[in-house]
Amino acid sequence: MASTKAVVLDPLAIGIDIGGTGTKYGIVDHVGNVLFSGSMSTKKHAQVETFIDELHKKVSELIEKAGGNGRIKGIGVGAPNGNYYTGTVEYAPNLPWKGIIPLAKLIQDKFKLPVVLTNDANAAAEGEMIYGAAKGMKDFIMITLGTGVGSGIIANGKLIYGHDGFAGELGHTIVIPDGRLHEGTGKKGSLESYASATGVRATTLEMLKNTNTPSSLRKVPAEEIDSKKVYEAAIAGDDLAQKVYEFTGKILGIALANAVMFSSPEAIILFGGLTKAGELILKPTRESMETNLIKVFQNKVKILVSHLKESDAAILGASALAWEMP
Amino acid sequence: MASTKAVVLDPLAIGIDIGGTGTKYGIVDHVGNVLFSGSMSTKKHAQVETFIDELHKKVSELIEKAGGNGRIKGIGVGAPNGNYYTGTVEYAPNLPWKGIIPLAKLIQDKFKLPVVLTNDANAAAEGEMIYGAAKGMKDFIMITLGTGVGSGIIANGKLIYGHDGFAGELGHTIVIPDGRLHEGTGKKGSLESYASATGVRATTLEMLKNTNTPSSLRKVPAEEIDSKKVYEAAIAGDDLAQKVYEFTGKILGIALANAVMFSSPEAIILFGGLTKAGELILKPTRESMETNLIKVFQNKVKILVSHLKESDAAILGASALAWEMP
Repeated sequence: MASTKAVVLDPLAIGIDIGGTGTKYGIVDHVGNVLFSGSMSTKKHAQVETFIDELHKKVSELIEKAGGNGRIKGIGVGAPNGNYYTGTVEYAPNLPWKGIIPLAKLIQDKFKLPVVLTNDANAAAEGEMIYGAAKGMKDFIMITLGTGVGSGIIANGKLIYGHDGFAGELGHTIVIPDGRLHEGTGKKGSLESYASATGVRATTLEMLKNTNTPSSLRKVPAEEIDSKKVYEAAIAGDDLAQKVYEFTGKILGIALANAVMFSSPEAIILFGGLTKAGELILKPTRESMETNLIKVFQNKVKILVSHLKESDAAILGASALAWEMP
Repeated sequence: MASTKAVVLDPLAIGIDIGGTGTKYGIVDHVGNVLFSGSMSTKKHAQVETFIDELHKKVSELIEKAGGNGRIKGIGVGAPNGNYYTGTVEYAPNLPWKGIIPLAKLIQDKFKLPVVLTNDANAAAEGEMIYGAAKGMKDFIMITLGTGVGSGIIANGKLIYGHDGFAGELGHTIVIPDGRLHEGTGKKGSLESYASATGVRATTLEMLKNTNTPSSLRKVPAEEIDSKKVYEAAIAGDDLAQKVYEFTGKILGIALANAVMFSSPEAIILFGGLTKAGELILKPTRESMETNLIKVFQNKVKILVSHLKESDAAILGASALAWEMP
């Protein structure tokens, strides 16, 4: 009898993470194992149509290996400026395609599979909730500290998209009114202008110029100073580089305190380049957050660093969206 | 045959708003008509038990008039530091009862009716969603600008309570790092220390001291200056008083911009004393908010002033909680 029964295999999800330079894709099981994965260039496709063609060709090969379309629950896509409600990517400065691109529909029509799209930070938050450090949490905030600062906010077990699908732009909240100019937005004093790789570089250049603190970084030409060099100097004990992290953590801590008093999350999950500095950045961040919190919130919000493998995280985040499909 | 049928009357909700000085209560129908209402002292009850006894006696009389317990769906209670999850009031500095008070349980046991409790600003947000300016909205933020600044955040059609029930403390978010000291919390530069009646008084005293701007308020003894006098001076054309509102609006606008970039609401509903100043405060607030928003959020968030009758608003807000009961 058993031999006549069809074997029902667990469903799988596809995650596609579209970045300005490259796109990563993978097929993921329920517990977050990336079974098959690959990558391709985004940048070389001036037309979104040729991009979709190549993506379809490459991902289809993986779908075949995984047992065909019948095993796939759906496709989750993370993309800069991706809008969950409309399935469009709108005026993404880092992508080669301008204007409003109906990306979810284009992918859905090509793959004949259901597609959900959101921005990369929201996808990362879903990834942490389904597979990562936020498993089982119903209220948390995900913050990605990379070249820029992204965020995804989960409340009552759901991502907050807001009325228009654009919620969760913590990186653009103003921490220092009339503070440092953000070249990309023209706004002054936003979190991103300080607590990003770009911000760390800017803070270092300012400190080199405005203080006499001795530093190994004084030998490095200004144009070569980046967050990696500052990190290396800091762990080697460089005083100025460590002050850069203290300053960055102080500002990040204010923003975290404000976020906590807004949505009272159980934890804040940090991800991205800046977290590599470990306690150098986490200690001042934690201290500043606690200093700025009113009593009822003190000493109860965890600051956690994502433990998802960096090479998998973007695919996992995007794939998590597929599990949340109705 | 018709005469043997029981007449089914529409259910009603009870709203109880507990303030530090007085408590208001009322019986409300589905569309927000306050059918019966009353008030009593909170302050004179050093013991919460005698408070509950008097409350029960007074509200029971109204319940009788409304047709008895059978017509009441439930009781919603708004109270400072009220926690939705636990039904307790925790360390409320303005209430006569210290420590953690199981207020929802005490009221439920006495009335034999289901009780939901939350803080007053969250209740106000529910009130706006059920009866007021936010009817039909799924994403909005309610901000009460009174002696202090309270807030309630609705996302995906639900109040954000956070993991511990204390979410929505926008009044305590830091707008000016290392700014004005908040006497109550010991924190520096919070929204409440500027955009409240207390904040308006403090700003006025600072401007009188630190500038030479002529003002009718210079004749008023410092201890008599309050937000009402500043308002009267401002509408009479007083330059300094108008500058106070510009400054207050500028800071409020930064906080609103940050809130918008967090949860992307369709509207922000303002309520309370400060809104009486109308465009004097709304214009600089709107301008400052737009200035600090990144493009994707600009010119689409409405700033609305609550149109609920001030005498009814607290009761309506609390009663709205009862309609949201499962």
